[in-house]
Amino acid sequence: MSAQTAAAESLDKPPLRIALLGCGVVGTEVVRLLREQATDLAARVGRPLELAGVAVRRPNRHPDVPAHLLTTDAAALVERDDIDVVIEVIGGIEPVRTLLLTALKSGKSVVSANQALLAEDGAQLHDAATAAGVDLYYEAAVAGAIPLLRPLRESLAGDRITRVLGIVNGTTNFILSRMDATGAGFSEALAEATALGYAEADPTADVDGFDAAAKAAILAGLAFHTRVTAKDVYRQGISEITASDIASAKALNCTVKLLAICERTINAEGQEAVAVRVHPAMIPRAHPLAGVGDAFNAVFVEAAAAGSLMFYGRGAGGSPTASAILGDLVAVARNRVRGSHGAGESSYAALRILPMGEVPTRYHVALDVADRPGVLAAVAGAFADEQVSIQTVRQEGRGDDATLVLVTHTAPDSALSATVRRLGEMDIVRRVASVMRVEGLTSD
Amino acid sequence: MSAQTAAAESLDKPPLRIALLGCGVVGTEVVRLLREQATDLAARVGRPLELAGVAVRRPNRHPDVPAHLLTTDAAALVERDDIDVVIEVIGGIEPVRTLLLTALKSGKSVVSANQALLAEDGAQLHDAATAAGVDLYYEAAVAGAIPLLRPLRESLAGDRITRVLGIVNGTTNFILSRMDATGAGFSEALAEATALGYAEADPTADVDGFDAAAKAAILAGLAFHTRVTAKDVYRQGISEITASDIASAKALNCTVKLLAICERTINAEGQEAVAVRVHPAMIPRAHPLAGVGDAFNAVFVEAAAAGSLMFYGRGAGGSPTASAILGDLVAVARNRVRGSHGAGESSYAALRILPMGEVPTRYHVALDVADRPGVLAAVAGAFADEQVSIQTVRQEGRGDDATLVLVTHTAPDSALSATVRRLGEMDIVRRVASVMRVEGLTSD
Repeated sequence: MSAQTAAAESLDKPPLRIALLGCGVVGTEVVRLLREQATDLAARVGRPLELAGVAVRRPNRHPDVPAHLLTTDAAALVERDDIDVVIEVIGGIEPVRTLLLTALKSGKSVVSANQALLAEDGAQLHDAATAAGVDLYYEAAVAGAIPLLRPLRESLAGDRITRVLGIVNGTTNFILSRMDATGAGFSEALAEATALGYAEADPTADVDGFDAAAKAAILAGLAFHTRVTAKDVYRQGISEITASDIASAKALNCTVKLLAICERTINAEGQEAVAVRVHPAMIPRAHPLAGVGDAFNAVFVEAAAAGSLMFYGRGAGGSPTASAILGDLVAVARNRVRGSHGAGESSYAALRILPMGEVPTRYHVALDVADRPGVLAAVAGAFADEQVSIQTVRQEGRGDDATLVLVTHTAPDSALSATVRRLGEMDIVRRVASVMRVEGLTSD
Repeated sequence: MSAQTAAAESLDKPPLRIALLGCGVVGTEVVRLLREQATDLAARVGRPLELAGVAVRRPNRHPDVPAHLLTTDAAALVERDDIDVVIEVIGGIEPVRTLLLTALKSGKSVVSANQALLAEDGAQLHDAATAAGVDLYYEAAVAGAIPLLRPLRESLAGDRITRVLGIVNGTTNFILSRMDATGAGFSEALAEATALGYAEADPTADVDGFDAAAKAAILAGLAFHTRVTAKDVYRQGISEITASDIASAKALNCTVKLLAICERTINAEGQEAVAVRVHPAMIPRAHPLAGVGDAFNAVFVEAAAAGSLMFYGRGAGGSPTASAILGDLVAVARNRVRGSHGAGESSYAALRILPMGEVPTRYHVALDVADRPGVLAAVAGAFADEQVSIQTVRQEGRGDDATLVLVTHTAPDSALSATVRRLGEMDIVRRVASVMRVEGLTSD
């Protein structure tokens, strides 16, 4: 029997039946791809994939979905005996958590794009999947179409990952790219992002870093075999960033990006620990992440044996997210056809979370000062008192407009923030004009 | 029971037993990582991974491997009943093919780094794995540590991949990078690569493109669900590239890279087809692949829903290759612990292979010509006669040293090569100074 004949026969086998929860931008693409690629998907899985129900809030708004598939009763849909796999693209915590737990407990595999839920309560979902012997996959929850979670979970499962660093939120990357390109302030760039559909009506989850922090928690959990929740992630958004911060970055030949950084490190007691943080940072323009524009995502992974790896692609949007969902769906379906399931959660390492204060970082600080003898000595003294050493210092302007621009060496973040507080209280410092962490410099 | 307790208990379970075939640079790293990461690997798999035998040619050359594990009898090792997984890092076709077929038929899963064998006879190996219900994984065979085959095989299994394009051979990339940086000729750059250990004593497999062609065949097979062998790949190496070709590329603001290109296309009969080729090409310096230096690899994947994705990292070397092997080993071992196996070969599409002559490409051609009226008209006429349209033409020098530099629009490769033959036969053309394909221009 030829490969093509076998593929054709896959279409005649009993279908695996799919329930879709939510049918917005991403869900609509999932429906389209399931329909347009039905023959290929059946050949790849060995059985057809049949859309058996779509839970939505307003059934009259989905002309592309056959009417008999639409329901407003998601709770009943996830309990139906004829459903094999549940795809969730609703987002948010409840009622999704309850729906997915019900689905898992009743033996359905789950494919989700919900970074907020996975980062808040992944453990409970994983436990339910393990107990039921089913799959819980969520490649689409982080970095859209970029294959990233599967490489962390499987390809690098024989290596020791030391660091994951990247741009994982397209909205903030668009805003920061615009501020960098045009000199616009935050509000102006946000308004442009909203007008173009890059930012939601309520942009809080993006601009305050909640979305990136949820993704960082998921990445850290997979990279370090440790349960990490969104609450474990130090989080600082971009809404306080000013045009003058961007100008400061430019003067240093840097640009500003909102970074998600997950690191394996050692805590004060000498134990292995995990540090996970999301904050804006100045990075050199020559750094590969500096060129990542608009809504693209890029993530570096460093591992002991593999060295440095980079993944780049579209981090959001209907089609890219649907691609990741369908990839998970095929994997989950193949497992079901074999009566098996994939690797479950791996959280055996249970490493401690390092508080942000103990994380080694470096700061850029710009100070408006009086230009008179002794100012630099006094400022340098404030750094020295906190055991922070200065890498570079530059004075811009003279007289009443003098600005001191300092970049530190690496020090515990608490020492750096204490130094900034101390500087703010000094008489000779008129104003702390800009404070931002710096990443990606080759020297320490 | 805590996650850490469960992990510790994994160490006390019966081990999965590993046979290693070959113990050179990569094999030595595999042995080291298996030893140093034993606790982590056991926790990730659920059972310990125990090295049970290592087949080598000269047992006295491996002081790092316990003597009782070493054997010269690979054939006996792969037949032993106590072996669960065979890792192969010998390379080449025979005796490896026979050894791996024996291993698969006797129920062992196989992890291989052997691109030559997989590209020549992957079908037979896959069939043996399917028949025995075991795994055949080979992430390390292409692009070293970069997770690439698993993303193609699984993450993008719900998408329609249209193109895979990249740098997959480190030796040739080192040589071309040196030629570009120093103006050296091919022989000189090859000698430097050999001295630094980037090229083997017999560099044929690398410089003539056999290695890249094998990898291209593997990539195309996975991307297009079609069996593709090395013989299906159009192959041109880099040994004919001269310092003057590199200078021509520089004049166009391009650099020269050996590219592996796998494309989904349509043949003359309107049927879907696959074109797979490996050849040097000029690419613009602004193209992301232009900056990939030394022994790094980078691969672009384009898919209908996902859009453009990029993967970057170390393509060779002991540790990076061992990282990919251990990732596969963990996957295979997890499958065995569950009494299951992963997705097998997917070749249902069985697309035709498009002959190189029908593949649309574009050429850069530099001609030494007499600088006199009518030369350009005659040259342009030769292109027109083959239905090839010219995008740009530039004349360098005057009088007897005049050179015409042309870049064409896209045309079937056979029309382009026929044009070059025709030009070579023209009296007014003193010499065809440089001919090279061009990729990555944004305009057509």
